[in-house]
Amino acid sequence: MKACGLVVEYNPFHYGHLHHLEQSKQETDADCMIAVMSGPFLQRGEPAITDKWSRARAALESGIDLVVELPAMFAIEHSDLFSKGAILTLRELGIDALCFGSEHGNIESFTEAADVYHEYQETFDAYLHEGLSAGNSFPEAARSAYRSIGLTEGEVDLSKPNNILGFSYVKQLMNYAPEVKATTIQRINNDYHDENITGNIASATSIRKELLRHGEMTEEAAWTLPESTQHMLLDYRRKTGMWHHWDYYFPFLHYRILTMSKHDLRKIHTVEEGLENRLKRVAKQANSFQELMEGMKTKRYTWTRLQRMFTHILCNTTVEEAQPLLSLEKIPYVRILGMNATGQEYLKKVRKHADVPFINQIQQLDEPLLEVDERAANAYYSVLPTPLKAEMIKQELQPPIRIHANNRPQA
Amino acid sequence: MKACGLVVEYNPFHYGHLHHLEQSKQETDADCMIAVMSGPFLQRGEPAITDKWSRARAALESGIDLVVELPAMFAIEHSDLFSKGAILTLRELGIDALCFGSEHGNIESFTEAADVYHEYQETFDAYLHEGLSAGNSFPEAARSAYRSIGLTEGEVDLSKPNNILGFSYVKQLMNYAPEVKATTIQRINNDYHDENITGNIASATSIRKELLRHGEMTEEAAWTLPESTQHMLLDYRRKTGMWHHWDYYFPFLHYRILTMSKHDLRKIHTVEEGLENRLKRVAKQANSFQELMEGMKTKRYTWTRLQRMFTHILCNTTVEEAQPLLSLEKIPYVRILGMNATGQEYLKKVRKHADVPFINQIQQLDEPLLEVDERAANAYYSVLPTPLKAEMIKQELQPPIRIHANNRPQA
Repeated sequence: MKACGLVVEYNPFHYGHLHHLEQSKQETDADCMIAVMSGPFLQRGEPAITDKWSRARAALESGIDLVVELPAMFAIEHSDLFSKGAILTLRELGIDALCFGSEHGNIESFTEAADVYHEYQETFDAYLHEGLSAGNSFPEAARSAYRSIGLTEGEVDLSKPNNILGFSYVKQLMNYAPEVKATTIQRINNDYHDENITGNIASATSIRKELLRHGEMTEEAAWTLPESTQHMLLDYRRKTGMWHHWDYYFPFLHYRILTMSKHDLRKIHTVEEGLENRLKRVAKQANSFQELMEGMKTKRYTWTRLQRMFTHILCNTTVEEAQPLLSLEKIPYVRILGMNATGQEYLKKVRKHADVPFINQIQQLDEPLLEVDERAANAYYSVLPTPLKAEMIKQELQPPIRIHANNRPQA
Repeated sequence: MKACGLVVEYNPFHYGHLHHLEQSKQETDADCMIAVMSGPFLQRGEPAITDKWSRARAALESGIDLVVELPAMFAIEHSDLFSKGAILTLRELGIDALCFGSEHGNIESFTEAADVYHEYQETFDAYLHEGLSAGNSFPEAARSAYRSIGLTEGEVDLSKPNNILGFSYVKQLMNYAPEVKATTIQRINNDYHDENITGNIASATSIRKELLRHGEMTEEAAWTLPESTQHMLLDYRRKTGMWHHWDYYFPFLHYRILTMSKHDLRKIHTVEEGLENRLKRVAKQANSFQELMEGMKTKRYTWTRLQRMFTHILCNTTVEEAQPLLSLEKIPYVRILGMNATGQEYLKKVRKHADVPFINQIQQLDEPLLEVDERAANAYYSVLPTPLKAEMIKQELQPPIRIHANNRPQA
């Protein structure tokens, strides 16, 4: 059985994802499509629109065979560490190929760029370090470091977000899983940051914006989403009364900042360079997440960086635990969220040769990486009404989702 | 000017407090009545029914001349430490007398008992230590230690809550302010733990129970409260939509427990003896504060002890900061909450000789004790709706309350 890995957030699963899934399957001729998916919090430092179980189920119902969780520690990081976590996880599942979406769409250009990168890595690292020390954001510093070794003038424009991410995958595959074949599919009909829905393939950003603005499944949103995703979103909202976003978390985040000493704040991952003083001052006057963000925003602290920091404050992720975890060169477990019959068969096959445990539920292991996941899940559920909150927390102790048919909705 | 100190919670100020205030004034012939009052959280580990500013104002409107805050670090402790904080604070204000309510009502019996205590202190301490090590609660262990040196058979029955508290005041006066004259007023018409209102002098417990059960000012509750307190309670409820109690704090407390590692929990003041494991387990299934308490309750962990622990978790009070603060032999500041003309005149007089700062607002000093107060205030306000929450947090930076007349309501 041949397996292809996808690195995803599915927030939520839409027709663009379906296109990517189908193209990847065709391109790699894989029997089993494996998604490593972010859990409760996403790369841009935001809560996912629904819990990971619902998102995993929607993906399985749209043709993914196996969904595993990207540990939260890596899921809320810049592209290089995000990719590292994803590749380390997929490697343990013995994938043959990885297929990512990119603006560019030509894998040779990525691998050639990666060769250049490896040749000039020292120069790159020096520029990156210099850029960060000068107070630039990671994307800015990386972009100018890429420029310094000629990687923005070449075929792959490393100023585009999905190219940057794709380039990180290629680099991390070279580092940790050189046996895996990298492929890419060109993204169609939308830009990563598109804010408006302009076709049935739209960016997740624009779909979320549409859903959250109206608080219901509009015709426009429905246009972009497979039926299974539509049902999932409606069920979740019926059950919980919400689609998650930062506003719900503001009371908890605010409470946390205001009951932490500056000493405590400095211990949180990514609270750096005296930010704790600004944080305390701004938090005292903020009446909403928006006000908190606007009070904190500077050229140096991008929106994404601040949102990640707030996620770490909310989830209580410390520098002390983050540093060794982000330096791992091998993932200590793979957490299975759900599978169909194909996924189950594949798992059965690879489990024999696996040298890390494949786990279902959060209490099977006493692992620092898993403890971060547990706290992130608990923080995520904290906004839910009673008694649903306790039910969702209990869900973390249940076996993974199994769906029996290999469904494929029509695009 | 002669000053008399009272140690109070005024949760809320009722006719029993008025009686005590008037009797104390008469008994000690004082010109200025000073109340050292608990702030946001109380000795039994509960949030106060309204914020401290409203409670201080009600006290001033009922004849108290000066209200100062008992630092939260001492306010949420067993009788000996609670009393220590109160006496250390009142000492800096140069009081001449202290007058407390007790079941017994005869000061000679207290001072004689204190003499016995000082003579047999080693025996007492050994019994207390033994009782605590055997897993008894502090009140139980103290009661049996008092028994061991004969202090339950004498005139003062040290199994009664207000006698225990009074005895702590007398002991701490001997330790820290032997120049202050101790006096006591016999409590009338009610028992500390009375749950029902049976006269216009009722226990604060029964009054709160009545108010919280009905969510409005009933005739029965009004019977026991001076008009100024009634207005204060109604205004507060109109403004905030609530009278505070633990149920409002449960989402925040629950979130905290579920996003702390066991390692973090062990660092919180009073989380001892492996309690962190039970805490995590019980919290996962609890849907309310009541369920959390019932899941944690054992013979060893009394209701009060658990509530204090939950207050420390909510306010993020660590062992590391608590230990040196509770060992202080001198209070580093006195925080003024409010005064009338008499209080202002008295303050002006004592300020000249004071050897610690008298402060108004929370940012005037960089003191660990004050930081605990700030966090307790912020935790207390966290349940308020926006934008009231930020307004109340700002109140902590304002000058104290001044009322211009020396009012005295009629009982």
